[in-house]
Amino acid sequence: MESIKVFSPASVSNVGPGFDIMGFALHQPGDEVIVKKSNLNKIEITKISGDNGRLPLNPNENTTTVGIQSLLKDQNINVGLKIEIHKKMGIGSGLGSSAASAVAGVFAVNSLLNLNLSNDELLKHCMAGEYVASKAFHADNVAPALYGGFILIRDYNPIDIIKIDLPSDLYCSILYPDIEIKTCEARKILKPNVKLKTAISQAGNSAGLIVGFMKNDFELISRSLVDHLAEPFRSKLIPGYDKIRDAALNVGAINCNITGSGPSMFAFSTSESDALKIVRAMKNASSKFTKSNKTYVSKINLTGPKIL
Amino acid sequence: MESIKVFSPASVSNVGPGFDIMGFALHQPGDEVIVKKSNLNKIEITKISGDNGRLPLNPNENTTTVGIQSLLKDQNINVGLKIEIHKKMGIGSGLGSSAASAVAGVFAVNSLLNLNLSNDELLKHCMAGEYVASKAFHADNVAPALYGGFILIRDYNPIDIIKIDLPSDLYCSILYPDIEIKTCEARKILKPNVKLKTAISQAGNSAGLIVGFMKNDFELISRSLVDHLAEPFRSKLIPGYDKIRDAALNVGAINCNITGSGPSMFAFSTSESDALKIVRAMKNASSKFTKSNKTYVSKINLTGPKIL
Repeated sequence: MESIKVFSPASVSNVGPGFDIMGFALHQPGDEVIVKKSNLNKIEITKISGDNGRLPLNPNENTTTVGIQSLLKDQNINVGLKIEIHKKMGIGSGLGSSAASAVAGVFAVNSLLNLNLSNDELLKHCMAGEYVASKAFHADNVAPALYGGFILIRDYNPIDIIKIDLPSDLYCSILYPDIEIKTCEARKILKPNVKLKTAISQAGNSAGLIVGFMKNDFELISRSLVDHLAEPFRSKLIPGYDKIRDAALNVGAINCNITGSGPSMFAFSTSESDALKIVRAMKNASSKFTKSNKTYVSKINLTGPKIL
Repeated sequence: MESIKVFSPASVSNVGPGFDIMGFALHQPGDEVIVKKSNLNKIEITKISGDNGRLPLNPNENTTTVGIQSLLKDQNINVGLKIEIHKKMGIGSGLGSSAASAVAGVFAVNSLLNLNLSNDELLKHCMAGEYVASKAFHADNVAPALYGGFILIRDYNPIDIIKIDLPSDLYCSILYPDIEIKTCEARKILKPNVKLKTAISQAGNSAGLIVGFMKNDFELISRSLVDHLAEPFRSKLIPGYDKIRDAALNVGAINCNITGSGPSMFAFSTSESDALKIVRAMKNASSKFTKSNKTYVSKINLTGPKIL
């Protein structure tokens, strides 16, 4: 095989009470990366589309190639590669755009070079790629994009990835308002300290959400999908947040919250028709505040990246 | 029926990362309460044993009778009752002594008067009784003592009780060092604020512990049984804490932590022989620091109170 094309999914991180420790993968949107063997003995980015010229072509600065370089260095492999990156989602959308591109590259090279490394071995290279964009070693987008499904990152030191069983009929409606929120900016507005009782409540909802998923208890998922650490502050960065959330709940969403650091919002439901109804209501409510919006409807993506 | 005798179990609350939101019931120790109908049209405590004269005979000040009074008032029942309370565990032991007595009384009256109220209906009366002793509306001892099993209290407003499935072969070793730690004192030494990253880590371990229980994953239970909110401060109140914990881990405990506000400590294992070995190691390590210790070994009590 001389060339490979890989799709890597967008992901919803934080998921309410799972701030920094939970995320799940979507079927759409997602980025595509093409990796071709080359005789030039260097890693080069030959094309980036869908980024409005914003992403770096320098392989030492781009999430996709930094992840690949980390993998190749770790495996002591010298190889020439030409890489195309096709962005299919907004940068700074809150949908794990940089994570999707990092995972796509690492996953593609693992397959192209027949390295047969496990996801556990690939994760740190995806995180190295993601670091270039977010300047933080977070796995709450990278891990779901790589493993698929719903991921609990119990701890980072060492990293402890736990895949959570989900109801088979869980749908996700995504609204992506056309504004950009930088993760680092969204992090600055958080409080460095929280009240003890807030920490206790976050732990309760975090555990409750996981039980809800594992027991197919949608009422419990709804009650538990409450975030005390980020949503109270970050929701203010999203024009019309409360109205959009109310619109989703009014047409039957299980619950609705911010994805990642925003501005995208997600809502859960149990059927495709409900998910479509919810996303229309969210878009309609949002249109009063933001001139352009994208929407997606997806079941949870249980498999992660795929070779196209 | 003119009289009833009820056993209500001790419980382990907090359970590492479940500070204020988790607890489970034991088969032993536990308190016994006898409730007899009387013609005197008043609630009176006729006997208390095992308390070294420390518990109030005034029915308005005793956890058992305050719980009963709350129940009777709520149900608009005027009845005379004579009550005996037999304490079978230390006051201030960290094993939910006041909760056991409160639950025993409420459970006994519900049965004696054929009220047929559910645990969900009885809980608030047990909490009212517990309040007299702890001056706080906590359910992390009362709920496991009443419902049995392992309880997650997702939220208090309104109260949300979630029973967690457990591995069938989970054993608990308890060491009760002969010192007293008052819950209110143990609460004062906690910090009113915690770092954001501490809150995130607590939520991760809290969710991880629940997944470990639900998936019979003892490695995950072990890794998740970490508390950042209370143990770092409260462990200093227990003489030889680190040595006792090390002793438990050295002979194979899954993990070991403080029960409630201490001084008792608990350790998990997967067989009775391991549990006995662990409790002996804990007692031996503790004997260098505390002159007298009690120990218990118990599976998780899945049923709660029982009529004797």
